[in-house]
Amino acid sequence: MTTVGILGGGQLARMLALSGAPLGLRFLVMDNVADACAGQFAPMVVGDYRDEAALAEFASRVDVATFDFENVPAESAQWLAERVPVFPNPRALATAQDRLAEKTLFRELGIPVPPFAAVETREELAAALAAIGAPCILKTRRLGYDGKGQFRIRTPADADAAWEALGAQAATVGLILEGFVAFERELSVVAARGRDGEFRPWPLTENWHVDGVLSVSLAPARADAALVERAYAHARRLAEALDYVGVFALELFCRDGELLANELAPRVHNSGHWTIEGSETSQFQNHLRAVLGLPLGDTRMLGRACMLNWIGAMPDAAPVLAEPGGHWHDYGKPPRAGRKVGHATLRADSAGALAAALERVGRALGREAQVAPAVSRLRE
Amino acid sequence: MTTVGILGGGQLARMLALSGAPLGLRFLVMDNVADACAGQFAPMVVGDYRDEAALAEFASRVDVATFDFENVPAESAQWLAERVPVFPNPRALATAQDRLAEKTLFRELGIPVPPFAAVETREELAAALAAIGAPCILKTRRLGYDGKGQFRIRTPADADAAWEALGAQAATVGLILEGFVAFERELSVVAARGRDGEFRPWPLTENWHVDGVLSVSLAPARADAALVERAYAHARRLAEALDYVGVFALELFCRDGELLANELAPRVHNSGHWTIEGSETSQFQNHLRAVLGLPLGDTRMLGRACMLNWIGAMPDAAPVLAEPGGHWHDYGKPPRAGRKVGHATLRADSAGALAAALERVGRALGREAQVAPAVSRLRE
Repeated sequence: MTTVGILGGGQLARMLALSGAPLGLRFLVMDNVADACAGQFAPMVVGDYRDEAALAEFASRVDVATFDFENVPAESAQWLAERVPVFPNPRALATAQDRLAEKTLFRELGIPVPPFAAVETREELAAALAAIGAPCILKTRRLGYDGKGQFRIRTPADADAAWEALGAQAATVGLILEGFVAFERELSVVAARGRDGEFRPWPLTENWHVDGVLSVSLAPARADAALVERAYAHARRLAEALDYVGVFALELFCRDGELLANELAPRVHNSGHWTIEGSETSQFQNHLRAVLGLPLGDTRMLGRACMLNWIGAMPDAAPVLAEPGGHWHDYGKPPRAGRKVGHATLRADSAGALAAALERVGRALGREAQVAPAVSRLRE
Repeated sequence: MTTVGILGGGQLARMLALSGAPLGLRFLVMDNVADACAGQFAPMVVGDYRDEAALAEFASRVDVATFDFENVPAESAQWLAERVPVFPNPRALATAQDRLAEKTLFRELGIPVPPFAAVETREELAAALAAIGAPCILKTRRLGYDGKGQFRIRTPADADAAWEALGAQAATVGLILEGFVAFERELSVVAARGRDGEFRPWPLTENWHVDGVLSVSLAPARADAALVERAYAHARRLAEALDYVGVFALELFCRDGELLANELAPRVHNSGHWTIEGSETSQFQNHLRAVLGLPLGDTRMLGRACMLNWIGAMPDAAPVLAEPGGHWHDYGKPPRAGRKVGHATLRADSAGALAAALERVGRALGREAQVAPAVSRLRE
């Protein structure tokens, strides 16, 4: 009987547990809140990741550990890794936690990135702004996600406001200035890498964000084979450099047929949720297969799939459930503004059928605007 | 937040909970053993179904109740149904629990059945045997499953031995003598019926048993459209007569192109496990959708699927996981002779590819004999 420990008890941990149960696995989730939604289907240790006693209890009850949450303190991950096998390894986690380390690695590996510079002082911000030019974005190096910890600088005159907003964090989590990319499309590679180095990407996914939070993912992305191969090659190089084991997402901007790396998410990823029904093997099951050293499952698509994120509160399920390819995912969380509370995946055999299903669902739920970009892409 | 109560905590309850989590449901399982495998993923009430205090606790914590196990005492189901909605209804459960009531209903509905007769005494056995003729099978009316509680009468001379084996149960669970059907094939219809009467069968499935226990299921069964329609019509008529809500299986014998009803299983069914990966909607999710009055999901197949049951102990997972369409289901149970401990489903786009995958898995696991009948059927 193998028990997999998961640091973080949100929807990713929940879907990992649900997907890993058929492998005969047991789970133990650690989270600092007792009502974390993964706890509805897996036993929990409630405690802060920095609480050594709680972490020791967690370590003593698991055979291997992984993450639902990338912002676990690097020291906690390291402490744990000295006691039980941890995948992905703490170095990969630490790299992905730090936008500067991550972008530096991208550049070292020959993966194109937007211009960026570390910022520690107001003077360095001025210098970086002069070098990179506006528009650009000042971001915290660590602990930012879903658009949090970011300030958009439209003109050099915004620099003071940006420093006012984030300058205090220069000394704690660090800051980075990134050139703004006027991208045409956002894409992601979600891929699994096994303990033996086997690399399996799912079909490239196109994503749309609203207010910095993922709204819609569509797979496969409309892209020529050369672009897809380039995206896979970037992801593979990155995974190999980090000796990454498990599932990760590489977020990419696409501009003029060029790919620019945005971010590495060292875990199963929201833009891969469609794989539950849209692929032979889900990202959740392949993450666990990788972590356990089992053969990776086939990542081919079954038709086409579009995922709609539900933010804040769940809409009415009926219009999705009534669709032949409609699948519902309610994470069992109380509603709260800005919170990811669930998603739906629509699957169909053709682009036309998927577009029609999206339109019906969008209309029934009054979410025409949410489905519109995916519908347009499918009708191109 | 809706909590679904499940009476019985075996693999069916476990798969119901795993499949229902995405609907935002919570579960409470009741079983008389504390280590029932569903308890690994759902909270439990441990107690006998006849223990009114335990049942009252269970009832007080659920919004609706269903079954993983059909031999819940009818009085317990009735007691529960007076307190919370119970699907399927206790009458359907009671009918399915009693081979005599079940076969009588089949006959009343015009669904062909093998000859049968109730047996209460040694004299009635003699009379029934004279009427039905050998070979035939003496069975308990209640509490038999997986070949238990049965005695095969090859010649009239076996009658004494049969009475010796089962006669004592005539007064408790009752006995029935059934004509033996020299069937060519065993088929099952797994179907869902909603609260609103909507009826959705999955594609017809062919099954092979070994020692009275399901060994292999193959879907879709090779059958002409008229036969499939007849099977669906029988299942639908039965479900309507019982005002059945949820998923059930109707097991059928096929002889000379004729269908004879064998048994109704008033629950999700082992011959429908392939629907997890082989259909747009699994039997588990559709059972819950039906029980909750939600729209039923599409029951179409995705390619072809074959399920292999693992009895006694789990074999090595690797050969199945290494197959592109290989899916593993370990129920988390300790090994025990004759116990259903897990299954695998292989899925492929064509009959040839599925046969080849079955052959590879059969060879790798030394289970050539188990896969052989399905391989032969696929190669016909």
